[in-house]
Amino acid sequence: MDGAMADTSRQGLERMFNARSIAVVGASDDPTRIGGRPIRYLQTCGFQGQVYPINPGRDTVQGLTAYASLDDVPGDVDIVILAIPATLVADAIEAAARRNAAGVVIFSSGFAELGPEGEALQDRIAARAAELGLQVLGPNTLGFYAAPSRTVATFSSLLESGPPPEGPVALVSQSGAFGAHLGIKAVKRGIGLRYWVTTGNEAGVSTTDVIRALAADPDLSVIGVYLEGVRDGRALMTAIAGARAAGKRVVVIKVGRTPVGSRAAQSHTASLAGDDAVFDRALAQAGALRVTRTDEMLEALYALSRGADLTGDRLGLLTVSGGAGVLMADAAHDAGFVVPPLPDAAQARLRKICPFGSPVNPVDVTAQSMNEPSLITDHLKAMFADGGCDAVVGFFMNWLESPLLAEKVRAAVLEGLEGQSGRTFAMVANTDAETRALFEARGVMVFDDPCGAIEALRQLRHQSVRTAPRDWTALPAATASPLAPDLTEYDALQSVAACGVAIPDVRRAETPQQAGAAAGASTGPVVVKILSPDIAHKTEVGGVALGLTGAETVAAAAERMLGRVGEKAPSARLKGFLVSPMVSGVAECIVGGRMDDVFGPVVMVGSGGIHAEIYRDVALSVAPVDRAGAQAMLRSLRFWPLLDGARGAARADVAALADTIVAISDYLVAHRDQVAAVELNPVSVGADGQGARALDAFIEPKGATA
Amino acid sequence: MDGAMADTSRQGLERMFNARSIAVVGASDDPTRIGGRPIRYLQTCGFQGQVYPINPGRDTVQGLTAYASLDDVPGDVDIVILAIPATLVADAIEAAARRNAAGVVIFSSGFAELGPEGEALQDRIAARAAELGLQVLGPNTLGFYAAPSRTVATFSSLLESGPPPEGPVALVSQSGAFGAHLGIKAVKRGIGLRYWVTTGNEAGVSTTDVIRALAADPDLSVIGVYLEGVRDGRALMTAIAGARAAGKRVVVIKVGRTPVGSRAAQSHTASLAGDDAVFDRALAQAGALRVTRTDEMLEALYALSRGADLTGDRLGLLTVSGGAGVLMADAAHDAGFVVPPLPDAAQARLRKICPFGSPVNPVDVTAQSMNEPSLITDHLKAMFADGGCDAVVGFFMNWLESPLLAEKVRAAVLEGLEGQSGRTFAMVANTDAETRALFEARGVMVFDDPCGAIEALRQLRHQSVRTAPRDWTALPAATASPLAPDLTEYDALQSVAACGVAIPDVRRAETPQQAGAAAGASTGPVVVKILSPDIAHKTEVGGVALGLTGAETVAAAAERMLGRVGEKAPSARLKGFLVSPMVSGVAECIVGGRMDDVFGPVVMVGSGGIHAEIYRDVALSVAPVDRAGAQAMLRSLRFWPLLDGARGAARADVAALADTIVAISDYLVAHRDQVAAVELNPVSVGADGQGARALDAFIEPKGATA
Repeated sequence: MDGAMADTSRQGLERMFNARSIAVVGASDDPTRIGGRPIRYLQTCGFQGQVYPINPGRDTVQGLTAYASLDDVPGDVDIVILAIPATLVADAIEAAARRNAAGVVIFSSGFAELGPEGEALQDRIAARAAELGLQVLGPNTLGFYAAPSRTVATFSSLLESGPPPEGPVALVSQSGAFGAHLGIKAVKRGIGLRYWVTTGNEAGVSTTDVIRALAADPDLSVIGVYLEGVRDGRALMTAIAGARAAGKRVVVIKVGRTPVGSRAAQSHTASLAGDDAVFDRALAQAGALRVTRTDEMLEALYALSRGADLTGDRLGLLTVSGGAGVLMADAAHDAGFVVPPLPDAAQARLRKICPFGSPVNPVDVTAQSMNEPSLITDHLKAMFADGGCDAVVGFFMNWLESPLLAEKVRAAVLEGLEGQSGRTFAMVANTDAETRALFEARGVMVFDDPCGAIEALRQLRHQSVRTAPRDWTALPAATASPLAPDLTEYDALQSVAACGVAIPDVRRAETPQQAGAAAGASTGPVVVKILSPDIAHKTEVGGVALGLTGAETVAAAAERMLGRVGEKAPSARLKGFLVSPMVSGVAECIVGGRMDDVFGPVVMVGSGGIHAEIYRDVALSVAPVDRAGAQAMLRSLRFWPLLDGARGAARADVAALADTIVAISDYLVAHRDQVAAVELNPVSVGADGQGARALDAFIEPKGATA
Repeated sequence: MDGAMADTSRQGLERMFNARSIAVVGASDDPTRIGGRPIRYLQTCGFQGQVYPINPGRDTVQGLTAYASLDDVPGDVDIVILAIPATLVADAIEAAARRNAAGVVIFSSGFAELGPEGEALQDRIAARAAELGLQVLGPNTLGFYAAPSRTVATFSSLLESGPPPEGPVALVSQSGAFGAHLGIKAVKRGIGLRYWVTTGNEAGVSTTDVIRALAADPDLSVIGVYLEGVRDGRALMTAIAGARAAGKRVVVIKVGRTPVGSRAAQSHTASLAGDDAVFDRALAQAGALRVTRTDEMLEALYALSRGADLTGDRLGLLTVSGGAGVLMADAAHDAGFVVPPLPDAAQARLRKICPFGSPVNPVDVTAQSMNEPSLITDHLKAMFADGGCDAVVGFFMNWLESPLLAEKVRAAVLEGLEGQSGRTFAMVANTDAETRALFEARGVMVFDDPCGAIEALRQLRHQSVRTAPRDWTALPAATASPLAPDLTEYDALQSVAACGVAIPDVRRAETPQQAGAAAGASTGPVVVKILSPDIAHKTEVGGVALGLTGAETVAAAAERMLGRVGEKAPSARLKGFLVSPMVSGVAECIVGGRMDDVFGPVVMVGSGGIHAEIYRDVALSVAPVDRAGAQAMLRSLRFWPLLDGARGAARADVAALADTIVAISDYLVAHRDQVAAVELNPVSVGADGQGARALDAFIEPKGATA
């Protein structure tokens, strides 16, 4: 989608999210039916605009004047809801355009989810709506709810008992039913909703469009997304990066992570499941937090919607039970927090007032604090003031189930928090909704599970990092010139070298004699390899000879090689020899990349040799990557300590290796119309200052059957 | 603890768990005080035996006749509860013995948790109680509750509102407060409790003792354990293995997993935190399921206490929302289940009755089943009968929140389960306690979260494996003869070879000339290494020469080596040379082991070279291991495909490598009094049938400063 289309889509969606008039085609007088529910919800949720039921058989619908057709409605409408059979949708879209609607919400099933015929119908409708400038939400969608305008365009049971409590969270789901499930659970968890949007088959409005539109709402602070797949991965990244730059926190469940889940996703929707490892990196690069479970999503939404920015990693653990302190310390370590011991002086002071406790961190105030709540205050103050904790998690078991004790604990905690603006306190306790609300009203988050609270703080910290907007769809111009056909290793090396990949001083030789001559010009021993576009594994056919010195030796070896290769690969077209100086380094890596169906050019670096495969020690990045990005990829490898000179070994030339990654990234971006995949294997990395050189290169052109 | 002591302990604990008379020393008339609560709870929980409050200042306590001292009580008592200051405990123990008590429950604090002085007091009391044949629970314990006899020996708020609902679960916790927290959460989750035991400082009764006693109760089916550490790891393993063999399912939270958690555990209790990786393996070898989070523990206890044995891995996923199906398919894959597609014929049949659904698996019965619950029945039957599913998880969102729909769904599910005895069905839905109970009454488990349900089924499957009892404390006799002092590599190789480790034909030479003669007797090139008990890294001092052929060459090389080593390690005592044939294999491994403080001899195998370190590709096992155990260790390595002949490479001699592991296991067990650690690095593994040989050996004697 280009910028102008994106703007149109955003404006259209914004008009839908702030609708002042809504028509329901297929309106029912029965408030429990699909065509009746939106009308009831519009009334029970307090929508202040016009509602036009369209039903040719009735004068009124649920007490409202009904109209025989859209054309009979007096004036324009912002949204037309279609609760009619699939076959009637095309005509209704024409009518909606005549009413100057911003968009239609198509509840109807019977489109792409049924197969090719339904897909064709869906495509026709989508194309016509686009011509007419209409947004299409659906088909096969549960629709949406927008709290600011109380706009209801859904029949979901989420609104069964009135509008959900309002708050700063948007839920966006490709699955309607699962979106409803998440919405209901969110409400139960005390998460306030500002938007709830399900996109169904996404014939028009995509998840990406919705995120882009929501990013413009200054009163929204969290966007939770349930994704099965997207068509344009870079547009999604751009939308997420934009939302993050606008100060929104973004958390995503992306399903289809595993082979079986991916199979289920493909049978369930028409969307491309894509390579999950790439999706994972793309979400991270765009700045989103990814979670995998429903309950994880809910706890994240809770913390992200209630917590102030948490930028430090010093975590205090306050408990009334030593055992829970150990459990929480483990969880804190897992979540990347440090649990710094309080300074000795503070410990000594606290030990005096709470002799049976532990003032270290975890801090144990023991059951004594039940009678002396000031112990809670004093310890909490010390954890912030003396211990320099950025956040404290307090574990109070079932103490808050007694209202009297709850009030005492709350007062003690709030006193301890005084003057600590910007510091985070998370309460963990069994509690009821009322007590919970009392704490929450004073900015305290309340959790049920100690490990869950710490995990939620990790998520809050992840989404407290400020990020800049980035247009991931904007790529430098692609190279127009096509790749030569039948690339040999020599061609591939020259091709990547032209983009900045360092390679050895390789020479091509037509005959064994020329190979000998080329070797003679070299100062040290050489490698000779057979050149052929048809031989992928040269060693297996005897097409590689290592460590040869002198023109005669090399010529003889090349001659023998011709014989071996001719025998083992008689049909391969031979294009002469590659003569290359022997290169040794302190480490070997694989650098490469490929064109992902969803995200386009993606680069990869891994440790060399068979261990890369066994240990899957690989870092990915959606291209383009710069030098800092490439270095971050390298540091994320488990192999990194070896590059970094672990155990007294020479430090590898990491800068040169990073430059190789950047060069491959540039190469892939420039050749994105021609290249399906590229691999440098191995890249020999010298000691610091000695460079990194690709010793072999393989390029898979687009359209090749690899 | 020997067998007779274990029997005494078990009999004592069994008498305590089935008490008919209880005395409370320090009894209070105030039912909210520590000395008052047990008396109140004994009444509110329905204890049928005698209760004797001991209070010299009162005639009655909470309506019961009070006694001035234990000696005034008419007749014997089974349990004496001590709710008195630490200084008075010693005398009370003498009095308890005079009343022929089975044991004392010491609520009092002020013992080992306060430091060396308190620890000494605790040790004196424990020793005296052992002399008197009294079990000691505590001190610093919240005590216990046993449902069969309604025995209450606790002041925990767990019993505040009467006895917890009864069921087949025991909770055993080293932390009293955290144990109470777990108990309260368990009750809320619908988990019925038969025992709740907290062990406090474990001066007498340990967690191990409690597990051993509980294993004898035929009506108990699940034991949940919270552990901070144990003194005798093998006794714990034996107790768990015994409980598992008796048909109990065992789930353990062991905290102190991480460095910071371990620090917290050490400051919190006197117990040894131990090496977590060893603890992890030990729990697995004993047959326990380990979990890390509170909520995970609760879901496990729920599934383990309600689920029939689940031995197959074929999981059916039934949903009313396609999106949830994908999410659950991912979770199922993660949990090790297969999600088999239904046979084509069954799919065709189901597609006819539910055209908008998906009959594959995940099976989507869509909202249509809200009106036609028979769709649920039909699909469920097909999943069991046609799909051969061992278990089905059904996801019904919020459908059960409507009582009418809940009843329809329940009837449909139960009809679908008819004739499927032994098959598992797990319902996932938002629901209230009443509806939940209706499902549970018919053997259906009810979960709140789809991923949580699948994880719980994984846990159920883990604990459905039947295991044999094993006495991990029974080890073959240890070798009495001490190790020679100042072991060289030659000595170490001979020492392990005597236990069955294959080594090359190594020779020791006193002089360079002897080294040359030794090499001359060899048929191929040799390695020469310097021998010295003082040189750990021979290469660094020039003490290794590879690939030498011929007596003269070897003698000259050895002569030069003497010079180099004398220069670089002038103070090292030199003991001549090791002459060894060059050995090459298809893979290199590290095999070794050490004496763990908690579990004794533990063996280890890892991939060779620096990658073992970088990728931590290591398998552990508490010794002794047999060949099957050693092969299981090897298969658990990520490195395993390389040993197994991945990518067309030669398969390594896995049997010989397994034998090396068994030999090192035997070595460690035999030398457990002398050896702190042993390492064979590398072990060169030949191709299948070619054996595996240790090329270097290092032994760290006990007491050495490594």
